[in-house]
Amino acid sequence: MAAGMGGSKKLVEIFYDVVSPYSWLGFEALCRYRHNWNIDLRFRPAFLGGIMAATGNQPPAMIPKRGEYMMKDIKRMAKYYQVPMQIPKDFVESVIRKGSLSAMRFITAVDMAQPQFLEPVSRELWMRIWSRDEDITQSESMLAAAEKAGIPSELAQKLLAMISSSEVKNRLKETTEEALKHGAFGMPAIVAHVNGKAHLFFGSDRLELLGNFIGEKWQGPVPTTSKPRL
Amino acid sequence: MAAGMGGSKKLVEIFYDVVSPYSWLGFEALCRYRHNWNIDLRFRPAFLGGIMAATGNQPPAMIPKRGEYMMKDIKRMAKYYQVPMQIPKDFVESVIRKGSLSAMRFITAVDMAQPQFLEPVSRELWMRIWSRDEDITQSESMLAAAEKAGIPSELAQKLLAMISSSEVKNRLKETTEEALKHGAFGMPAIVAHVNGKAHLFFGSDRLELLGNFIGEKWQGPVPTTSKPRL
Repeated sequence: MAAGMGGSKKLVEIFYDVVSPYSWLGFEALCRYRHNWNIDLRFRPAFLGGIMAATGNQPPAMIPKRGEYMMKDIKRMAKYYQVPMQIPKDFVESVIRKGSLSAMRFITAVDMAQPQFLEPVSRELWMRIWSRDEDITQSESMLAAAEKAGIPSELAQKLLAMISSSEVKNRLKETTEEALKHGAFGMPAIVAHVNGKAHLFFGSDRLELLGNFIGEKWQGPVPTTSKPRL
Repeated sequence: MAAGMGGSKKLVEIFYDVVSPYSWLGFEALCRYRHNWNIDLRFRPAFLGGIMAATGNQPPAMIPKRGEYMMKDIKRMAKYYQVPMQIPKDFVESVIRKGSLSAMRFITAVDMAQPQFLEPVSRELWMRIWSRDEDITQSESMLAAAEKAGIPSELAQKLLAMISSSEVKNRLKETTEEALKHGAFGMPAIVAHVNGKAHLFFGSDRLELLGNFIGEKWQGPVPTTSKPRL
């Protein structure tokens, strides 16, 4: 491989919220393609509730027929993407009413203070809400996710204490505003930086198009070949 | 190939309206895959306005940020799908206000009386509204599309006269109701029949998943290999 090829790596950001099942699909697929595509993948935890409010968007399930379809679509997509997703029994209570503000602040604290745990903590919170139908709003829920992600318990307590700080609250707001600035109206919002311009790809179903856009090949949600970049 | 293999062909229906750009992408991709996948492809012209009204759904562009994104998405998708799509200059006037009721009745008349022209007439009407920014609501517009599709002019006049008949109006209503019965809330609504059950795939971005579902391989919107089934 030519020297300096790393310099041509394209920055791909994924703005996500663990309340969003399609964000999880996009997150896992991109985590796999990190090793196949010549990209720098950057995780951008943001707050979906803020994006919906700012754009006047509504959860797709507000149209009953769309909601019915989404349940089937999520099941089929999760199976195809090989992500162990299960729809929470009480969708409205678990997803819409409880929301994800504390969880996303916790993830933001991890991003600020211990970024090496950002990926596993995000995944463990998705595992709670979107796989095992467990709470993500209580302190013990976030600590349990942190533990599974490998964060020492004392450190997890400190990160949890950070979620009421203005630094963490502001950072989550800023990241959400950045997503909005890129044109996001829902999540995942995937932003590819090419030739100094930012290009938004909305949803988990534009990864094939994204690949084409950055000159890489989509091989389905579970790529079989791997070209490690290191 | 084993004898009688044709018996395992799976019926795939595409419910579409020429007012819908994503329907055009789905339509062209499935027209290509007809020759690669072991499917019977059936075109089901229906009325998007009726589906939106019945389900309480709204055009995605009603959320301004979503509308802005859609314009970019359509351009990128059209290029990737190799469909010569151009967004009409006055989107609201051409697409939302004028609508497609007469055009879909005309296509329905073609489907009932001269089904061999269904595919080219649909395509020519898409070419008018979604490629050359031309009207599709006037009689001369429909006749021009029919001519390009190879329909003799006398026959086209007869088909045009049929659009005010109750037979044609009812058939379009029935097809629209059938799409709704399958769970459609927008278009394209692609329905795969597998083991006696109908499975809805909404949009032009579930074709890879559809392929996986029916045991066929997606090779992108322009498949390079072809296995003719005849």
